[in-house]
Amino acid sequence: MQRGTNLGRLGDFNQAVIFDSIRRAKDGVSRVELAESTGLSPQTISNVVRRLLDDGLVREDRTVVSGPGKPRTVLELETNRLMAIGIHLDPGLISLVMLNLRGEVAVHKRLVAPEVGDPADTIGIMASAVEELIEESGQPRDRIVGVGVAAPGPLNPAAGIVSGPPLLDGWTEVEVVKPLAEKLGLEVLLEKDTIAAAIAELWNGDEEEDQNFISVYVGTGIGVGMVVGGEILRGVSNNAGEIGHFSVGEKAAPCECGRDDCLAGVLSFAHLSAKAREAGLPVDAGEDAGVAARAEAMNTFVRLAVEEEPAAVELLRGFCARTADMVGQLVNVLDVDKVIVGGPIWAEVGHQNIDEVGEIINERFSVRSIHGVRVVSSTLGANVGAIGGACAVLDAALSPKASALLLR
Amino acid sequence: MQRGTNLGRLGDFNQAVIFDSIRRAKDGVSRVELAESTGLSPQTISNVVRRLLDDGLVREDRTVVSGPGKPRTVLELETNRLMAIGIHLDPGLISLVMLNLRGEVAVHKRLVAPEVGDPADTIGIMASAVEELIEESGQPRDRIVGVGVAAPGPLNPAAGIVSGPPLLDGWTEVEVVKPLAEKLGLEVLLEKDTIAAAIAELWNGDEEEDQNFISVYVGTGIGVGMVVGGEILRGVSNNAGEIGHFSVGEKAAPCECGRDDCLAGVLSFAHLSAKAREAGLPVDAGEDAGVAARAEAMNTFVRLAVEEEPAAVELLRGFCARTADMVGQLVNVLDVDKVIVGGPIWAEVGHQNIDEVGEIINERFSVRSIHGVRVVSSTLGANVGAIGGACAVLDAALSPKASALLLR
Repeated sequence: MQRGTNLGRLGDFNQAVIFDSIRRAKDGVSRVELAESTGLSPQTISNVVRRLLDDGLVREDRTVVSGPGKPRTVLELETNRLMAIGIHLDPGLISLVMLNLRGEVAVHKRLVAPEVGDPADTIGIMASAVEELIEESGQPRDRIVGVGVAAPGPLNPAAGIVSGPPLLDGWTEVEVVKPLAEKLGLEVLLEKDTIAAAIAELWNGDEEEDQNFISVYVGTGIGVGMVVGGEILRGVSNNAGEIGHFSVGEKAAPCECGRDDCLAGVLSFAHLSAKAREAGLPVDAGEDAGVAARAEAMNTFVRLAVEEEPAAVELLRGFCARTADMVGQLVNVLDVDKVIVGGPIWAEVGHQNIDEVGEIINERFSVRSIHGVRVVSSTLGANVGAIGGACAVLDAALSPKASALLLR
Repeated sequence: MQRGTNLGRLGDFNQAVIFDSIRRAKDGVSRVELAESTGLSPQTISNVVRRLLDDGLVREDRTVVSGPGKPRTVLELETNRLMAIGIHLDPGLISLVMLNLRGEVAVHKRLVAPEVGDPADTIGIMASAVEELIEESGQPRDRIVGVGVAAPGPLNPAAGIVSGPPLLDGWTEVEVVKPLAEKLGLEVLLEKDTIAAAIAELWNGDEEEDQNFISVYVGTGIGVGMVVGGEILRGVSNNAGEIGHFSVGEKAAPCECGRDDCLAGVLSFAHLSAKAREAGLPVDAGEDAGVAARAEAMNTFVRLAVEEEPAAVELLRGFCARTADMVGQLVNVLDVDKVIVGGPIWAEVGHQNIDEVGEIINERFSVRSIHGVRVVSSTLGANVGAIGGACAVLDAALSPKASALLLR
């Protein structure tokens, strides 16, 4: 049922819709075409376009000849008018990207296996990396609309706090947004990494077909982001997508939740490295290994799989099958028609496993007689979390209050 | 990100919002108050109210004095201008309700343990029951906007087909909407029963607080409906909410999906009656029992629990704990802040189990440091599925195209 909670924003909503149409038009779009595609009146189009031109977000200086009749003047995105930065804080990897208004990566940067044990140090490292990124980009600072930090959950985005991700030792109720904003003099927002990855897929997906999907993030941890009816499913505290404590029906590692048969346990580094040791693979960071040592051991494991070391490939296959099985159940819950798998580890090994993952998900899907589930690898590569952080900034900036942000 | 897919409906959207505001105002609402609460212009309010008055959906013949100043004329819902009928086709129970525009039950009817083995017969039974309901209500037939059938999934609502619910033997790809509409001369829609229950809860919930919840339907089967940001989560084929094939981590009954540790298996009648037999309870419909015999045996079991027969109470407690555990995991996935448990069986035994269910769900919730989960029993009683079917009709009729339906 419609509830009208966004009524105060209808004007801004129109602006967001028109801007989005211009943003998506690869070859420009005329005012007449905008009126047709949005259903808005020529007067409304005219008013909104005037504001967008004044703000420098679009330009209107090119005519296009298509068929008979007079050439039409087209509106085009001023692609680099605003830029957004995304940072993905992953225990094994800090990656950064800068996106333009079209969502294209202008520059990117990666810190492999950083020492993330001390939050204050890590925030300093992130701030320096942002400064370097801006310098490398050559973009004037006043074009940067903000910085989106994608971090593992649970977190408290409204308060700008990372609450205590199981894989980030020492990160309990750590303020991230405030210190980073102070260091950088930029607006900063926080988004759960798996949700950020889904935002990135939505931004880069097809406007018609990619409106109901689960995105699976395979990095140091595993989680999902969900898009339903073209909207990101964030949850009331922005922590949606936690799947780690579903039972997998067999004993694995003891889990912090008190059980020993959780998905998180089966997919944990502890369990994986134990299995790898049994298989004679050199993947062991030791019991008391820190975040960085575990991340390196994980990288070793992934490299072995990429090099098609049989035991590593087989272990990874089991890992993927487990995940696929659970994702198939989530497809049952949400009744989506697409699954996009991505993240830093998947970027390396996805091609080896995507077919079987697709089969398992479809086999688990209980209404497969009515529709199938397209299962694909993300095209966004290892930076999907960082790209999502930046897309979240663009979302916040452009929809529905672009002008307000430009007025800083 | 906003995508503007509903743009062509902005006018109708305004109408739906204004009508919803009038509908929800218990003591009438003035045009000035409407302008304040919706943010729409007085001109828009005036145009829409004129249409609603012309359609007879609201009236404006009462003045209210509140404080100093001249008495204000208030708009009020013409509560009985349109009525909607809901039918819940449950293997053990066919229930029917007629709702007025406020969503209040005007009349209801129940067929316990009907013979649902033959779809054509059952559709005939449903049609006769609708005729009786209309007659009992004393409402003129032209006020009935439609009939909403809530049925177990999987189904294909777009095609009006029940596809093959595991608990309804003989119902494979059965057309329901078309024959029922032909018999009744009324518009008919089909909705999955667990989704219908969620629609009922949304219609009857608090406009502010009840916007993100899971509703758990406990009837012959168990399923969930989900509401996120005030919107029903239906899924691309309207089959969302299937939770039966999650692993519960222990062997139970063999499941049609090929496993033997599914939630559906643990909660199945076969498993329950086997456990009941072990406990010496007279709950056994026999291996080849039909739908009706199983439903009766289930009713016997529920009656024993209600009468506090210790073995029945204990068995039911385990059943509820299993369900609560799984729902807690779903709360993790969706990050909602409320769970509403309802349905015919819950209406009988909910008071015995709601506290423990609430504890388990909150214990399973992984971001409980950030917010809690309110777990309550539905106030809608055993008819929640049928009420949801009727609410789905009201939704379709009022939002956003009331006038179109009135023009029949």
